[in-house]
Amino acid sequence: MSARPIIVIAGIGNGTGTGGATARVFSKAGYRVALIARGADRVKKAADDINQSGGEAAAFPVESYTYKALTDVLGAIRAHKWTGSEKPEIRAALWNAGAGVRKPFLNVTEEDLQLVLDTNVNGAFAFAHQIVQAFKENEVDELGKRGTLIFTGATASIRGNVTTSAFAAGKFALRALSQSLNKEFGKQNIHVAHAIIDGGILTDLSLSRRTDEDAAKAWKEDANIRLDPESIAKSYLYLANQDRSAWTWELDLRPAHEKW
Amino acid sequence: MSARPIIVIAGIGNGTGTGGATARVFSKAGYRVALIARGADRVKKAADDINQSGGEAAAFPVESYTYKALTDVLGAIRAHKWTGSEKPEIRAALWNAGAGVRKPFLNVTEEDLQLVLDTNVNGAFAFAHQIVQAFKENEVDELGKRGTLIFTGATASIRGNVTTSAFAAGKFALRALSQSLNKEFGKQNIHVAHAIIDGGILTDLSLSRRTDEDAAKAWKEDANIRLDPESIAKSYLYLANQDRSAWTWELDLRPAHEKW
Amino acid sequence: MSARPIIVIAGIGNGTGTGGATARVFSKAGYRVALIARGADRVKKAADDINQSGGEAAAFPVESYTYKALTDVLGAIRAHKWTGSEKPEIRAALWNAGAGVRKPFLNVTEEDLQLVLDTNVNGAFAFAHQIVQAFKENEVDELGKRGTLIFTGATASIRGNVTTSAFAAGKFALRALSQSLNKEFGKQNIHVAHAIIDGGILTDLSLSRRTDEDAAKAWKEDANIRLDPESIAKSYLYLANQDRSAWTWELDLRPAHEKW
Amino acid sequence: MSARPIIVIAGIGNGTGTGGATARVFSKAGYRVALIARGADRVKKAADDINQSGGEAAAFPVESYTYKALTDVLGAIRAHKWTGSEKPEIRAALWNAGAGVRKPFLNVTEEDLQLVLDTNVNGAFAFAHQIVQAFKENEVDELGKRGTLIFTGATASIRGNVTTSAFAAGKFALRALSQSLNKEFGKQNIHVAHAIIDGGILTDLSLSRRTDEDAAKAWKEDANIRLDPESIAKSYLYLANQDRSAWTWELDLRPAHEKW
Repeated sequence: MSARPIIVIAGIGNGTGTGGATARVFSKAGYRVALIARGADRVKKAADDINQSGGEAAAFPVESYTYKALTDVLGAIRAHKWTGSEKPEIRAALWNAGAGVRKPFLNVTEEDLQLVLDTNVNGAFAFAHQIVQAFKENEVDELGKRGTLIFTGATASIRGNVTTSAFAAGKFALRALSQSLNKEFGKQNIHVAHAIIDGGILTDLSLSRRTDEDAAKAWKEDANIRLDPESIAKSYLYLANQDRSAWTWELDLRPAHEKW
Repeated sequence: MSARPIIVIAGIGNGTGTGGATARVFSKAGYRVALIARGADRVKKAADDINQSGGEAAAFPVESYTYKALTDVLGAIRAHKWTGSEKPEIRAALWNAGAGVRKPFLNVTEEDLQLVLDTNVNGAFAFAHQIVQAFKENEVDELGKRGTLIFTGATASIRGNVTTSAFAAGKFALRALSQSLNKEFGKQNIHVAHAIIDGGILTDLSLSRRTDEDAAKAWKEDANIRLDPESIAKSYLYLANQDRSAWTWELDLRPAHEKW
Repeated sequence: MSARPIIVIAGIGNGTGTGGATARVFSKAGYRVALIARGADRVKKAADDINQSGGEAAAFPVESYTYKALTDVLGAIRAHKWTGSEKPEIRAALWNAGAGVRKPFLNVTEEDLQLVLDTNVNGAFAFAHQIVQAFKENEVDELGKRGTLIFTGATASIRGNVTTSAFAAGKFALRALSQSLNKEFGKQNIHVAHAIIDGGILTDLSLSRRTDEDAAKAWKEDANIRLDPESIAKSYLYLANQDRSAWTWELDLRPAHEKW
Repeated sequence: MSARPIIVIAGIGNGTGTGGATARVFSKAGYRVALIARGADRVKKAADDINQSGGEAAAFPVESYTYKALTDVLGAIRAHKWTGSEKPEIRAALWNAGAGVRKPFLNVTEEDLQLVLDTNVNGAFAFAHQIVQAFKENEVDELGKRGTLIFTGATASIRGNVTTSAFAAGKFALRALSQSLNKEFGKQNIHVAHAIIDGGILTDLSLSRRTDEDAAKAWKEDANIRLDPESIAKSYLYLANQDRSAWTWELDLRPAHEKW
């Protein structure tokens, strides 16, 4: 790893959530950052922010998270010219895309289902396909790894519930993918992990939903009741830094006061 | 339930497996049987066999297990004219379709994935949509139920492994669907259950794969080492007969000598 | 199995719960019943009831559920003279004892913990020890089994919670025992199963706790909101009747309207 | 936290395993170390090693892991005079004791069972009792915590198997305790975590069991096939350093090439 390595992150929304925080935390830790998201403006802005903070990021917008779109965008990432003379290696990746369809089952449409399957299954499979192939080209590093691929899960990854027939179907499927990959590629020193985010995350969006002023203030200031994206990102960096002798497939993350 | 009730079964293959056995067991227990499968000849033959045994069955072939195909075929089933003057009610249903894609992850194609998602997610959602709506039209019966919807799961429903990235993704998703439906519709006295078939099933297909004569003989005759489709079917009938005060979402089924 | 077989049931309380219902359901199905419980009067009365209903039951009181007490009482059961000239075989057994310690962790005493461990671990191990040895003496029957050993679990078998540190510790341990036994003795055609009772059961005790008249009436009459002991017992009989090709280690049971 | 905090570690064997490594890693991170183990010589030597490396450790031998022994030894730890004028606080604790009884079920004796229950349940409850009370006396620190209590689990924490009836019973119980404590005391900003060590650990003992020279060499040198105690210890330090907004109850740890 002579050149600074790359992390590829899919799913950064407007940059205030887990994907954006992961970009910043890994950038500070010395990674180049390839950002994938829907919305060319948003992903460009997230990349600009990192570039202006002394990091190096590139934006790769997609129109949707289909199998084809992800295959194509990973091709573009792998062909991208980064600064410096050496070819940097993709050493970490995060699948953070997700579609939060929460509806009574009889209201779930074929389109809702397709959206969930694209972000949690079709897109994720294509993404993992490209990332695993990229990792296989790497040498084993000083930690004994060729790369770390992390998937963001949710409560719905391990528990279906009354309004999550579609969402949980997608999240269960993503968890199955991550477990299968962990077992298949561990022998090749490729580390695949899955994080169950079991609580609400402080983002622009989740904050805007607290229309009551006191509730919004509490959500923003009380770290006991919601997850901080940067804390999640630090967990992801920790996973990437685990050595070959003791690595984690799955961990859960929740705020101290969460009822579960 | 003045008229004999209907069970709708999706996925009967050539009739020698779980779907076919369930058709026969429920037929003997007094149910009319609506059979859904790919292959018009096969599903017609399965229906004929039941009709010739004194039961009443109707065949509903589909070309594939897409969302649209399942929606359409359930429409045909609900419009079907059964014998007798009264309109029989759909009181039970089994989703037994499945696509056994088992491949190293890097060999899984977009088409493989779509096949798995259709049989375990898209088709299953459309099927469940129609079945739940049909059940909602029923009165609560003497067991305290409007109907029982059963899903056939597999080892891959709870464990991803080195060749099951796609298969497990589909089966995890199906399990999520079944759990979500159980929680959402229990309050309406609709019973949704999920069976984890954790071992090989004796079918024409699994038998034909034992090319060694002794292995084939053992597979056929030694009930300790593989599941009998009729035993699975009896479990499904038991689930359908559980009353409202103590019903099961999930059970596992495996042969006595299975290592697990 | 020329003589009517025996079921041994440990934990019948005052006879209005799961243990008592299992005794009655298996008695009607042709089993002799050996009843173990604390309280000589209660267990004698439960046995008398079955004997007066045309069944055959014998009472085996214990002072507590220690390892020694269970070893001794199983010795007495195995030496018991039943009616008829032939020696009947123990073909089924139920461990239904339990101690419902529910307290904040800091209030749990060493004595509380010992009580939980005796009923869920020490007593259960001694019970299983004797039962498995008795089963090993049996021939394989027409179902392909030497016997069926069932353990009654609870929500706390799979989920610790704020007042269940001790109770869940015991119930998790019991579940581990049942899974280990299933895997170890399946090869010898001994069937071990575990039922997760995920809701309140209608018993004299649970009814007496509903001091509000309407709540008591609903608890008694509305089968949607609590489990009927007889329905649980029927599940146990179903497990005992599963054949060797497709048997269940674990199933859950809950009322239709239970939120879970 | 003006004074350097204390970590209490129960179960360090001869110091070459997880407990010993945790002592060293936390010592380097600025913790004082209170060591509990059977064998006065061994625990004294482990403490001496840390004291000679510039850390501060104290040895607290116990004869066995009974409820009373653990209650007493924690009393001694809480009364211990550490260097410096200020009273240091217990801010972290590890329950790493365990008894690896692996036997066919019918060979498990009452004594085996008691040993397993003492190290995984009785001792652990007494330990947790004292640690939680000590944590409750602390102020919330800059991470938003009063303390972190970690339990070492094993494969047998989540899966019973043919020789683990006793061992898995103990480990399942310990996992239940840790989950219950996490839920009960999270609201008080006490962090309880559980690590599933799903593979063999490189220790003097595990090394000595490899009598084949090549196997011993591979076990020592190939970090892909066994866990390094220091890597486990780093995970524990990471858990202790998680902030209140995103902390983990459970993670698994295994070597890269482990089949699971």
